[in-house]
Amino acid sequence: MKNEKIPYKIYLSEDEIPRAWYNVRADMKNKPAPLLDPVTRRPITEDALAEVFCRELARQELDDTNAYIEIPEPIHSFYKMYRPAPLVRAYCLEEKLGTPAHIYYKFEGNNTSGSHKLNSAIAQAYYAKEQGLAGVTTETGAGQWGTALSMACSYFGLDCKVFMVKVSHDQKPHRREVMRTYGASVTPSPSDTTAVGRKILAEHPGTGGSLGCAISEAVETAVNSGGRYRYVLGSVLSQVLLHQSIIGLEAKTALDKYGVKPDLIIGCAGGGSNLGGLISPFMGEKLRGEADYRFIAVEPASCPTLTRGVYAYDYCDTGMICPLAKMYTLGASFMPAPMHAGGLRYHGMTPVLSQLCADGLMEATSVTQTSVFDAAVTFARVEGILPAPESAHAIRVAIDEALRCKETGEEKVILFGLTGTGYFDMMSYAKHNDGILTD
Amino acid sequence: MKNEKIPYKIYLSEDEIPRAWYNVRADMKNKPAPLLDPVTRRPITEDALAEVFCRELARQELDDTNAYIEIPEPIHSFYKMYRPAPLVRAYCLEEKLGTPAHIYYKFEGNNTSGSHKLNSAIAQAYYAKEQGLAGVTTETGAGQWGTALSMACSYFGLDCKVFMVKVSHDQKPHRREVMRTYGASVTPSPSDTTAVGRKILAEHPGTGGSLGCAISEAVETAVNSGGRYRYVLGSVLSQVLLHQSIIGLEAKTALDKYGVKPDLIIGCAGGGSNLGGLISPFMGEKLRGEADYRFIAVEPASCPTLTRGVYAYDYCDTGMICPLAKMYTLGASFMPAPMHAGGLRYHGMTPVLSQLCADGLMEATSVTQTSVFDAAVTFARVEGILPAPESAHAIRVAIDEALRCKETGEEKVILFGLTGTGYFDMMSYAKHNDGILTD
Repeated sequence: MKNEKIPYKIYLSEDEIPRAWYNVRADMKNKPAPLLDPVTRRPITEDALAEVFCRELARQELDDTNAYIEIPEPIHSFYKMYRPAPLVRAYCLEEKLGTPAHIYYKFEGNNTSGSHKLNSAIAQAYYAKEQGLAGVTTETGAGQWGTALSMACSYFGLDCKVFMVKVSHDQKPHRREVMRTYGASVTPSPSDTTAVGRKILAEHPGTGGSLGCAISEAVETAVNSGGRYRYVLGSVLSQVLLHQSIIGLEAKTALDKYGVKPDLIIGCAGGGSNLGGLISPFMGEKLRGEADYRFIAVEPASCPTLTRGVYAYDYCDTGMICPLAKMYTLGASFMPAPMHAGGLRYHGMTPVLSQLCADGLMEATSVTQTSVFDAAVTFARVEGILPAPESAHAIRVAIDEALRCKETGEEKVILFGLTGTGYFDMMSYAKHNDGILTD
Repeated sequence: MKNEKIPYKIYLSEDEIPRAWYNVRADMKNKPAPLLDPVTRRPITEDALAEVFCRELARQELDDTNAYIEIPEPIHSFYKMYRPAPLVRAYCLEEKLGTPAHIYYKFEGNNTSGSHKLNSAIAQAYYAKEQGLAGVTTETGAGQWGTALSMACSYFGLDCKVFMVKVSHDQKPHRREVMRTYGASVTPSPSDTTAVGRKILAEHPGTGGSLGCAISEAVETAVNSGGRYRYVLGSVLSQVLLHQSIIGLEAKTALDKYGVKPDLIIGCAGGGSNLGGLISPFMGEKLRGEADYRFIAVEPASCPTLTRGVYAYDYCDTGMICPLAKMYTLGASFMPAPMHAGGLRYHGMTPVLSQLCADGLMEATSVTQTSVFDAAVTFARVEGILPAPESAHAIRVAIDEALRCKETGEEKVILFGLTGTGYFDMMSYAKHNDGILTD
């Protein structure tokens, strides 16, 4: 029987915002394999990492033993601007589906960057500021990460140089303008401002660019800045999963308040930042043998890293100047077919989730684009939130699982991550509305 | 001394969502002048109004005696999807300005329609559904109202025909696609689907349209539907202010919790729906002699209805088929110069606010576009929310008043309405970013 006392939205109070991030690696028996130095091919040192990343972030990247890392006060203070994020009981979706399942989603889109990316952006900007840097460089695809980083840098008065995949730069001028409004400079990638960009332009004239290529340009710019800039990254890295654990920590606190235990936890997976953050504290319980949960990573059929990739060391970037990571990968030179969930087009998967998948602690599945947009529209019409196409991958599988419950009569509790809103993806929705979207 | 115990965001609980709207007309000694029938020029009857509007809405439109009107359960239930809306203490803005003032804003943008318009859209859709109608017709300018109505109609399974001012239809394809995603049909106005549209097209070939013209087309379509459709409107009408009172009621409840009494209440004013809703319960106290507040309506210098219009009977639409309202007006044929706060381009002002202004109970001021965008960017960078250009009119005056407090040392409490987000206005921000925006 449904417990109707649970409100539509469970908001925590401000003093319930977590004071520490949770580092799931501390509880993993099989730790993620170490990053390798691209030159020596040996496990990379903190000093080598600190040439590319901020010192404290390099430290966090290599820390697989401390379970909790305190959130510095200025970051916590910024979190209060847009957190706690609501945990929503999807009553209307349940009713529409006629399912006995209880569906919950953690909604991370109620901030101007429109997604969960801000959780790590503000942390990375803070450490750059603490280190006395002039600014940071980064890449962005769909634009969510670049927007989030622009907001974070603006808050701390840091310069922000964004290399935006050219095809997105041209197709998403609105995203570009949000970044510029927050004071960032936005360069379409590949560009002639870097050696790697010039090389790619020479080899592939007229290319629309890729995330891997934009990463290479951003890293090169930071490394050649005379130490004034560092490179920051919005996904894949373990430090990012650490910061994103705030999603799962808040979700768990909210569910615990009402004594609700999810059977199934679902998230979309591109580089893995959202999914990793959402599942971390739940996975911690599973790893410690305190509870059991089923975890499902959802990826696009056009970029099936976990479901069809290999688990091996690979470069994180096309230019092969970043460290190598052991991860599920489609190959650093993989170019996904044009599709619209831009944030899920990355060739690799964060080493933490890769290891958990390899150890059978997490499942993965892939879904087609048209089925994803169908789910997005169903969800938008009853829950009132227009989801990002990325997030809609998780919605698709949540709906499928809820419909399965309808067949079996099971009252499963489903939790999924609604990472963001689709306001900047309306041209993809337009194709769906016109019936011309393909898989 | 600042009371630091007040959180960044004051969220009410779901059971604190108001159960009744507040009808400020009940407490007005000088009632707004009655609407006049466009044919007879006599006060319009409920029956005549009910030919255009839903029956219950016609009743609400003429009700100037009942102070509270109960919110039907299905509307209240929908409100739970996105309400209560947060009341935010603008700590970061205060710090940025170095002002002793305490600034609060009621943020209505955390829903997919991106604005407060949904508060009335869901009510109007509900009454249309209750009456057994097939659907509703409406007009939209900037697109906020059309988006809100599409969401509301989708929820109740009603057809929704939106006439969108042609210039917006072409310049804001993203808005159009949100409406289509929610199942609405969107027709650029003027169109050849109505007599009034064909007449305007013949007289002004190539015109980009206007709100007044789109209203005429929507009304004609409803009136000629054989009773299956009614027309609905997102502003100006007293019924809309009634529904929007939920903004003020929630804001007041949140402030009362912390014993905070605003000195100054500020809102942007186009047709007056947001401002009217925000100030209603506070104005009620003022009218009943229980408290005093200063109210400021902010309008664009390019469409200065309250500050430079005349207080007289005028048509609400260009086609002159709607009832006449006594209001501050620039004339039904007024065509504002192209500017970007599309939602503030209406030639008139809701009769309730017009009367309150005429009685000296409320002030009005106008601001220029470049100063508005400057305020918008300042606000976005410290408060993390990218405001709609409409909302930024209120931000401009709130900042100016806070800076005045800095000079005088006064610790005034300022409350303003942040009606929505600017995600669909990025091309205006682009002009600002490029320094080519003019007044």
